[in-house]
Amino acid sequence: MTIAANKLIDGKLIAQTIQDEMAVEVADMLKSSTRAPHLAAVLVGNDGGSLTYVNAKVNACERVGFASTLHHLDEWTTEEELLKVVEQLNQNPEVDGFIVQLPLPKHINENRIIEAISPAKDVDGFHPVNVGRMALNLPCYLPATPSGILQLLERSGVTTSGKHCVVIGRSNIVGSPISILLARNESIGNCTVTLCHSKTADIAYHTRQADIIVMAIGKPGFLKADMVKEGAVIIDVGTTRVDAPGTKLGWRLKGDVDFDGVAPLASRITPVPGGVGPMTITGLLQNTLLAAKKAIYK
Amino acid sequence: MTIAANKLIDGKLIAQTIQDEMAVEVADMLKSSTRAPHLAAVLVGNDGGSLTYVNAKVNACERVGFASTLHHLDEWTTEEELLKVVEQLNQNPEVDGFIVQLPLPKHINENRIIEAISPAKDVDGFHPVNVGRMALNLPCYLPATPSGILQLLERSGVTTSGKHCVVIGRSNIVGSPISILLARNESIGNCTVTLCHSKTADIAYHTRQADIIVMAIGKPGFLKADMVKEGAVIIDVGTTRVDAPGTKLGWRLKGDVDFDGVAPLASRITPVPGGVGPMTITGLLQNTLLAAKKAIYK
Repeated sequence: MTIAANKLIDGKLIAQTIQDEMAVEVADMLKSSTRAPHLAAVLVGNDGGSLTYVNAKVNACERVGFASTLHHLDEWTTEEELLKVVEQLNQNPEVDGFIVQLPLPKHINENRIIEAISPAKDVDGFHPVNVGRMALNLPCYLPATPSGILQLLERSGVTTSGKHCVVIGRSNIVGSPISILLARNESIGNCTVTLCHSKTADIAYHTRQADIIVMAIGKPGFLKADMVKEGAVIIDVGTTRVDAPGTKLGWRLKGDVDFDGVAPLASRITPVPGGVGPMTITGLLQNTLLAAKKAIYK
Repeated sequence: MTIAANKLIDGKLIAQTIQDEMAVEVADMLKSSTRAPHLAAVLVGNDGGSLTYVNAKVNACERVGFASTLHHLDEWTTEEELLKVVEQLNQNPEVDGFIVQLPLPKHINENRIIEAISPAKDVDGFHPVNVGRMALNLPCYLPATPSGILQLLERSGVTTSGKHCVVIGRSNIVGSPISILLARNESIGNCTVTLCHSKTADIAYHTRQADIIVMAIGKPGFLKADMVKEGAVIIDVGTTRVDAPGTKLGWRLKGDVDFDGVAPLASRITPVPGGVGPMTITGLLQNTLLAAKKAIYK
């Protein structure tokens, strides 16, 4: 199916543009600084998906001129050992920001690890201090995916003030923070926001009223044409692997939106892949740059 | 006008009941503890409203058997001097929790003061760590008014799961946190939540769809009968002083709800005064008790 080019929100292109801008800024910083911004990543175990994500983050650092380090620990690393690594990274003045790739093995308490990260180096924006500062509209590291969504809207020229935005899904990393961010008194914000989730009585009832829909539940093809008002802006955060017989990998990524059905109705829509996904790493890089500049915490 | 007793949510009675339960618990604690839970309050300047609020908090402490201290500083106290007082209270092992009464004089940066309070003693729940932990559904001190609303709903037997709750107002101390709390996966929670505010295009459009309405904008009598669905539960957080000629004070408190018009339609409704108001101090006392028991932070 063919979709008018001006209808698609091309996350790949927007992410590339932002990263190009960052590369210029980093090159400029290096004229007066002794070292490049430095992102460290901690990976525990050998989960295939996590390895892929972490490698993509490390590669993105290279593209914009950041230094990066990967700390790959074996899957039997204890919580205390991991806390020591976190503390070393907190103390290391050569590291501007770091992430601990989630999920962690079940024997490790994720919250305890996240809370051990210095808020000043928490470039994932997962520490309660950063989440709280976000909710209070104080300077902070925004979580990467919601931050990416805000920038997709901004760079696509979507106005949000006074619009009704319906968010489907209340996860700590996407649905809940984007519902907070879009309601704030900010230029990309000032939406009336409805947050729906698994206990919502009738999701379609709400999505049909929305000017902007953010889908973040991980149910491929959930949002159908009869659930959408004509002219709505559709942001699809879903990325579920579905079987794709005959392809090289045997699978492909599918979003939460029935793209072929919904796209003709939408005024703007993000594809999967190539929509929100590429923006997530961009958000992480931007937080790392803020950390290197000590723009949020002194 | 007469309203059926089972329609009114009697915040004064519910607050009294909870405080009576706390008094029993405190008396019991004192059998094995050397001292009572201790709340300190810091007041800067002589704002009449603030003095009244702080005194009400101190008196409430007495009723439940808490110790309390009031630190009354003059209005020219500098930010550095106030920070020293905060630090002394952070360090004082005899103080379980403390509040700095807001608003502060304009020459003091409120955020800087709030962030200087130890999260473990931040019984107002205003520190970013507590706000973030609330958003992440981790143990924390809930802000007093939203916490009071949850308890009013619970003790009135209102079921919330799957209900559509429309919150009007996005302040950091009421509208924004109650919108987060009612969407969480908790027994009083699991609502589909719509957050409206000054930029919302048509507030009545949203309130008419609501099973539960929380009014928190400080506009007396804003919510009229034609904005409400029959059977809705109405929570009125507004407390604006309006002229009341012929009364002893010359003013009375008026909520954001046109009570006489809305009450006949509502299934449950809070009055003003005597609804949410009395619950706010109760929430503060409950946080102080949690602090004394080291139930949230060790």
